[in-house]
Amino acid sequence: MDLPSKVKLREVAPRDGFQSLKDFLPTEQKLQIIEAVVKAGVKDIESTSFVSPRAIPQLRDAADLLAQVPRQGVTHAALVPNLKGAQNAISAKVDQLVVVISATEAHNQENIRRSIDESLGDLDSIFSLAKGNDTPVIGALAVSFGCPYQGDVSEKNVFRVVEEYISRGAASIILADTTGMATPTRVQIMVLRFREQFPGVKFTLHFHNNRGTAMANLLAALIAGATTFDTALGGIGGCPYVPQAAGNLPTEDVVFMLEDMGVSTGIDLEELITAAHLLEKFLGYPLPGQVMKSGPRDPKLAAKICGVGQNL
Amino acid sequence: MDLPSKVKLREVAPRDGFQSLKDFLPTEQKLQIIEAVVKAGVKDIESTSFVSPRAIPQLRDAADLLAQVPRQGVTHAALVPNLKGAQNAISAKVDQLVVVISATEAHNQENIRRSIDESLGDLDSIFSLAKGNDTPVIGALAVSFGCPYQGDVSEKNVFRVVEEYISRGAASIILADTTGMATPTRVQIMVLRFREQFPGVKFTLHFHNNRGTAMANLLAALIAGATTFDTALGGIGGCPYVPQAAGNLPTEDVVFMLEDMGVSTGIDLEELITAAHLLEKFLGYPLPGQVMKSGPRDPKLAAKICGVGQNL
Repeated sequence: MDLPSKVKLREVAPRDGFQSLKDFLPTEQKLQIIEAVVKAGVKDIESTSFVSPRAIPQLRDAADLLAQVPRQGVTHAALVPNLKGAQNAISAKVDQLVVVISATEAHNQENIRRSIDESLGDLDSIFSLAKGNDTPVIGALAVSFGCPYQGDVSEKNVFRVVEEYISRGAASIILADTTGMATPTRVQIMVLRFREQFPGVKFTLHFHNNRGTAMANLLAALIAGATTFDTALGGIGGCPYVPQAAGNLPTEDVVFMLEDMGVSTGIDLEELITAAHLLEKFLGYPLPGQVMKSGPRDPKLAAKICGVGQNL
Repeated sequence: MDLPSKVKLREVAPRDGFQSLKDFLPTEQKLQIIEAVVKAGVKDIESTSFVSPRAIPQLRDAADLLAQVPRQGVTHAALVPNLKGAQNAISAKVDQLVVVISATEAHNQENIRRSIDESLGDLDSIFSLAKGNDTPVIGALAVSFGCPYQGDVSEKNVFRVVEEYISRGAASIILADTTGMATPTRVQIMVLRFREQFPGVKFTLHFHNNRGTAMANLLAALIAGATTFDTALGGIGGCPYVPQAAGNLPTEDVVFMLEDMGVSTGIDLEELITAAHLLEKFLGYPLPGQVMKSGPRDPKLAAKICGVGQNL
């Protein structure tokens, strides 16, 4: 396998993970989780979302949280659904904006009650505002690998929106498998064609594990040349109260696997597991991450961090 | 990716899954699960283990179960820890015996209270008995990719036992990642060297998901030329009451992924999900399998089988 020597992991638990929580997680606890992953070496965080407090009450503390997060050496991104969100995010001094449009009409309608063209129509004002404030914009594509309403998604539909992002100066692109419909060959084809179609354009893969394929998809993407991935502490994400929902790739599982494969993440696994345990303590129920339960390969370290002794 | 057109999946839920259950699963329910996976197209099953009823009370009904299983077009293997187990298994008309030795002394001692040499000493009588009864023997290697007591496992230690198996006429070899310590590069190296060292020898990969890497490991193995895998319905395996324990690769997740990648498994996903739901019903708690929760990619089929509607 031809693997990169290092990759970048964007920690999305504070946005994609927390937004799915039913009960409000106190700002102080959100802050502690961000501090804990920063201590572990995480440098890129999607820290919150500037959305309507009525739409996602969980993230109503976005500005308050961003006023307290560690800034030194850390890039804080925030998801914004519209111009108002972008204005609020910039006022709160985010380092990056993330905008999202779905690759299919049906999903865009369900997700934000607008057509893709309506969403595209908003981009000019958001990009213009961001440019005026020296704030990079990341363009994300929901349901890039399959849509729960339409099924298969054509590359053409994905690349059409990617082109709109790039033409407006997007700093990078996120290809999201929003409901876990990707499999390795789909990922490989998408990554190879993306690189061919948009040479030099930075891109991130964002996988969900609804069908158990997320880690294999990451491996396929890595082999195809991807070097940036969204992951979430403990694998949080999706609604914990809905049985079919499934989380993001657990950051600590990804760090464990990649570091063992000789691919550097710059993140300390032991500190990261400690952070995942803290999150589980705050939530009061088990997270899907596996390494936080079984520990690293080293039996002594596993016993020390996870108390699992022999973890048979 | 250079992928095979088809693979063989060995269903190990009835042995590796059921042996971990605390409460006795009635023989009638074990039988219903075996019948359900056979209906889905599964042709190779590790159906039980002929061990001491004191050691694993759950599998005390091995002979009774084998007297009732569907035989037409199905190969039933049974794990046997010693000559007595092999005799009982052959009396019960199993189609294949599986013997297991660990790649490390420490694990072999913990697992069966014997040294590797003592285990090897038993092989002659087991293989001889099997040969006299025209019953193929599969040689399995526990902790082939890492040992929870010793840490890393050298290829030399694995191949030493493989050679002992082959010299006695083993029909195939199982390389097991007993406690989920493998990662894709380790798997790739092992598979490539195995094929180099033992050209033409059939082999199976058996992965556990303790550290979230099992599906990526399967992909790496597939790319490296492996075509047979152990999987378990619903991902059962490991002790459900021990939080750090983790199951086998869920058969339905593997079928979903491989079929979507154009790799034929010969198994019907819809029937398999139905079987996994039946198992979950018998057990009364959720299994780790993801496709049994989210359903196939086709939204209509997902709604029909899993009742998930939009499965966002």
